Amino acid sequence: MKVEKSSNISKCLVDVEGAKDVEIRWLISKEDGAENFAMRMFELQPGGHTPLHTHPHEHEVFIIEGRGALIFEGREHEFGPEYVIFVPPNKQHRFKNLGDSVLRFLCLIPASAV
Amino acid sequence: MKVEKSSNISKCLVDVEGAKDVEIRWLISKEDGAENFAMRMFELQPGGHTPLHTHPHEHEVFIIEGRGALIFEGREHEFGPEYVIFVPPNKQHRFKNLGDSVLRFLCLIPASAV
Repeated sequence: MKVEKSSNISKCLVDVEGAKDVEIRWLISKEDGAENFAMRMFELQPGGHTPLHTHPHEHEVFIIEGRGALIFEGREHEFGPEYVIFVPPNKQHRFKNLGDSVLRFLCLIPASAV
Repeated sequence: MKVEKSSNISKCLVDVEGAKDVEIRWLISKEDGAENFAMRMFELQPGGHTPLHTHPHEHEVFIIEGRGALIFEGREHEFGPEYVIFVPPNKQHRFKNLGDSVLRFLCLIPASAV
């Protein structure tokens, strides 16, 4: 069992090619006993973005704060706080911050992807 | 693919024994192509609570707004906005609203539980 303020969970830079000013917190993962899926929180600074990439797992996303866009197969879909986003497997995508403040969202993936 | 403001997704009363003033939105589910896990949003009015129950699937929870408590195997664990909660399988639990405003949280479950 875990009950924790998310800001108390450590944050790491996402140091992969194509990522810019992206940090991640692993809020719930196998270390907590979560065998099926993992909950991460991402923080993108203004101008920041995740890599434009494709992978065989889906994303389930909930926007906590900020304004951004999902680039999905070449088209841009804007969002704001409390938007929910489903990115199906094997589709090219990127998240980017369009605002002048931090963009923060949850992104969950199946445990098999970790 | 889905990009949708969560408040545009329909909300239903949770009409099960032991639930009081609880509503649910199914934000992402198999209908959206999500084969592995489902994202729901719960709203509990002041004084509201979910059933005290046990089931073989886990919960991954993120508190959006409000103040409440997780009753977990007889002990009470308080939380507020931006807390993250993991409830492992087969453990008795209940969520209740301790505040004087709505308690709103995400609760994700494996698709096998639906």
